[in-house]
Amino acid sequence: MKYGIAIFPSKDIQDVANSYRMRYDPHYALIPPHITLKEAFEEDDEDIEKVVKELSEVAKETNPFSFAIRKLSTFSPVTNTIYMKVEASEELQNLHERLNRTDIPKEDTFNFVPHITIAQKLSDDEHSDVYGSLQMKSFEFEERIDRFQLLYQLDNGSWTVYETFRLGKG
Amino acid sequence: MKYGIAIFPSKDIQDVANSYRMRYDPHYALIPPHITLKEAFEEDDEDIEKVVKELSEVAKETNPFSFAIRKLSTFSPVTNTIYMKVEASEELQNLHERLNRTDIPKEDTFNFVPHITIAQKLSDDEHSDVYGSLQMKSFEFEERIDRFQLLYQLDNGSWTVYETFRLGKG
Repeated sequence: MKYGIAIFPSKDIQDVANSYRMRYDPHYALIPPHITLKEAFEEDDEDIEKVVKELSEVAKETNPFSFAIRKLSTFSPVTNTIYMKVEASEELQNLHERLNRTDIPKEDTFNFVPHITIAQKLSDDEHSDVYGSLQMKSFEFEERIDRFQLLYQLDNGSWTVYETFRLGKG
Repeated sequence: MKYGIAIFPSKDIQDVANSYRMRYDPHYALIPPHITLKEAFEEDDEDIEKVVKELSEVAKETNPFSFAIRKLSTFSPVTNTIYMKVEASEELQNLHERLNRTDIPKEDTFNFVPHITIAQKLSDDEHSDVYGSLQMKSFEFEERIDRFQLLYQLDNGSWTVYETFRLGKG
């Protein structure tokens, strides 16, 4: 089965993100707005409890932390993806590193750029239009993160939560 | 914020349910296939941690249990909703009752008929067509449940998981 690890930001951020995703993100209906902590990886169902145990350990050793969003950014020209840039606190970087140092299969192939996608798979023209008009808006959030989620993917591409891990609690 | 409590069945059941929901359930994109344990209720964000504590207690006192699906059924004529009938084990009934005996606001207004919706908001004609043709198919599942989820609703009507509760663990 295909699993992934993500953080759901507050309802406020999710509602703002969805107001754009609805129009500009074909993954809108597949998963709530999120910060990906670990890209999708394959794991046997029989082994997922080992992963859960490891994630509990990582969560227990990580304290809740805050992050800020101050602006939008884009992965263009690599992909036409527009996102809320999550200012990388040291804790978030450490959490990402810890998750990639476990026995969980597959190291992430990209550099870790914490973000919340609000638009993707745009044509070049759409991308410059949307990015241009969104840059006139203000995106300012600051919030505390105290959990992350292990999810699995269904055949239709959508994601279901398997388990929640509270930081500092295990 | 609006919260709800649900069980996600296995990926196998979710995939089968989604293959019908895709066409026949306007809530398809809002939440994965699920068994509702407690209908949506309003709770202040500041008080949700009290609810979490209560749910942890209930989870700890409830052992994992099995359930079976043997056939489809419908809520017609009350609503044109077609569902996989979850054969109500005593444990599932008890869990539902325990969740309604907590301080969590709002007792459920309907009798507890555990089910996984696969079609809803059909016209009368659609309902009899779809129900007629689906009844020729076999729906046979048996599986073990070891967790439930507390979710909250976003402005677009979709649901995000807030926390997972493992049965027998708290």
